[in-house]
Amino acid sequence: RKRSSGSGAGLPTINWQMATSWPISLDTIFGGATTFADRLAAITDGRFKITPRPAGELAPPLEVLNVVSQGAVPCGHTAAYYYVGKTPAAAFGTSVPFGLNGQQQNAWLYEGGGLKLLQVLYARKFGIIQFPAGNTGGQMGGWFRKEISTLNDLKGLKMRIPGLGGQVMAKLGVTVQTLPGSEIFQALQTGAIDAAEWVGPYDDEKLGLNRVAEYYYYPGWWEPGPTLEVQINLKEWQKLPPVYQAAVQTAAFEANMTMLARYDARNNQALQRLIKNGVKLRSYSPEILAAAEKASFELYDDFAAKDADFKQIFDEWKQFRDRIYAWNNINSASFDRFSYAKLKS
Amino acid sequence: RKRSSGSGAGLPTINWQMATSWPISLDTIFGGATTFADRLAAITDGRFKITPRPAGELAPPLEVLNVVSQGAVPCGHTAAYYYVGKTPAAAFGTSVPFGLNGQQQNAWLYEGGGLKLLQVLYARKFGIIQFPAGNTGGQMGGWFRKEISTLNDLKGLKMRIPGLGGQVMAKLGVTVQTLPGSEIFQALQTGAIDAAEWVGPYDDEKLGLNRVAEYYYYPGWWEPGPTLEVQINLKEWQKLPPVYQAAVQTAAFEANMTMLARYDARNNQALQRLIKNGVKLRSYSPEILAAAEKASFELYDDFAAKDADFKQIFDEWKQFRDRIYAWNNINSASFDRFSYAKLKS
Repeated sequence: RKRSSGSGAGLPTINWQMATSWPISLDTIFGGATTFADRLAAITDGRFKITPRPAGELAPPLEVLNVVSQGAVPCGHTAAYYYVGKTPAAAFGTSVPFGLNGQQQNAWLYEGGGLKLLQVLYARKFGIIQFPAGNTGGQMGGWFRKEISTLNDLKGLKMRIPGLGGQVMAKLGVTVQTLPGSEIFQALQTGAIDAAEWVGPYDDEKLGLNRVAEYYYYPGWWEPGPTLEVQINLKEWQKLPPVYQAAVQTAAFEANMTMLARYDARNNQALQRLIKNGVKLRSYSPEILAAAEKASFELYDDFAAKDADFKQIFDEWKQFRDRIYAWNNINSASFDRFSYAKLKS
Repeated sequence: RKRSSGSGAGLPTINWQMATSWPISLDTIFGGATTFADRLAAITDGRFKITPRPAGELAPPLEVLNVVSQGAVPCGHTAAYYYVGKTPAAAFGTSVPFGLNGQQQNAWLYEGGGLKLLQVLYARKFGIIQFPAGNTGGQMGGWFRKEISTLNDLKGLKMRIPGLGGQVMAKLGVTVQTLPGSEIFQALQTGAIDAAEWVGPYDDEKLGLNRVAEYYYYPGWWEPGPTLEVQINLKEWQKLPPVYQAAVQTAAFEANMTMLARYDARNNQALQRLIKNGVKLRSYSPEILAAAEKASFELYDDFAAKDADFKQIFDEWKQFRDRIYAWNNINSASFDRFSYAKLKS
């Protein structure tokens, strides 16, 4: 072991602000940004500092990509599916209805070619590069003021559900609303809406949604394993020395893994509290699930017919989905079926 | 942005050899060690180099912990459950029969307190510190020369199955053999054994096991999501500057995540090839699974009665298992049940 001659001496000191889409109260998701930034600082001996800022401080929550793309802010932490209006294929960077769970999403992004395809798209469309840096795991299917069993029960229902999930619900007859998280409680309480989805037990409990809606549905079929991502302006990225580029990538892996672990650890405890407080758990009926899946793939076919980027990525993704479903049905679902058979659901 | 005054200049150059338990042919598992080492070098600007060496070069495959503990080699990449003879609680660091799947294992280790408990145990017993650095995902249930449907079919069967899975099989009447991977093919071919488990489709195909046994069982209930780990001699660890300690930890996160993604991506393709080549997939019967689960928990109770370290970790682990099973039965298994219902299994 010998002292180095100082090869690290020439590395620059960098201080970046990071725009995020999250309020501080979503501490597990916002925590993905801080895990990333803290580790990046630690492995660069404090020379590369990124300061994550809550939604609204540097950019509105759904405009993180825009400010990073313009170079107004060098980097962000957000969800790609907020930007499907600019390019619908961005949805695959997060999660799509009846898509991949968290573990499958990582397999597709890292080893199924998904991330490379999406990075080429983002570079061309937005001049940014992105890395997965968080996953919430499978979400819940939302809060309802009354039971819904049939497709007919959905007709005319006013539900807060954004994104592609909302588009699918609209095809099933739901009147879709998009409200920020902070307004859901009151809208449910006053009856302005009949139903709302947010995230899962840990985050939903903090909004108090169990106090204004009795029925908690599962699964969240529109978000089986959403990925969050770090986005970096490509010109800023290209200026980074290779050692910092490597540091960004590995810190993002860590943020991706720890967020999923945290949600799994926190949600299971929150779910027990919610049940104890009288929440009524209900599964979506096979009738609703089948209709929603059919509507989802009709939507994908529509996007593919109109948008070549979507078609390219969808075709690859669909093949991967079929293969990994076949594999996980053998190695993991068979184990789950036995293990969970004794549990109430 | 300004040039630093050279705070990295004083960082030492380190070259470590790493003992591993893997032949090069297990390229996905061995790849966990190289992913870890490559990233560590990249984020330390080449100053902290670790060279993973195949099993047998620095230590026999099942003695990695020993040489790291003695300080003969500074670090290793191995599976904790090889060392249950020294302390049975080590099994929880990898996987136990009817335990946690890959994602649950990460939730328990990182956010359920599991890794902290195991690190305290390893420090006291072996003078080492460990970090998760790989996961194979749920494995398969092994190759059989004839169908097994009932508990009676297991009696007297000669099966290659090491570890706790072997101890459970022995309680069910199986004559348990422990052979290295390189000897499985011939033993099955000559009929010296009737059955053998190895890893999963991708690795099993490379050994050619489908050519000497017709039936491929699932799930691999003794290894639902085994973690591999980096082990470091504690005195060497304490000599590392904090920036290198941070670098080791984050590179291990990346290795943990990418190995799981690789296995999921590679196994699904290998499974399709095996099926095309005539492999007959069979599920363990509910009778065998129920008896194996019962035998597993009897084994854990026996260990707990004899070993206080095992009891402490088992009690914590069991509570976590119950909670996360309840949560995943709601949010993910319900989605899987619908999604996979159309598939053959």
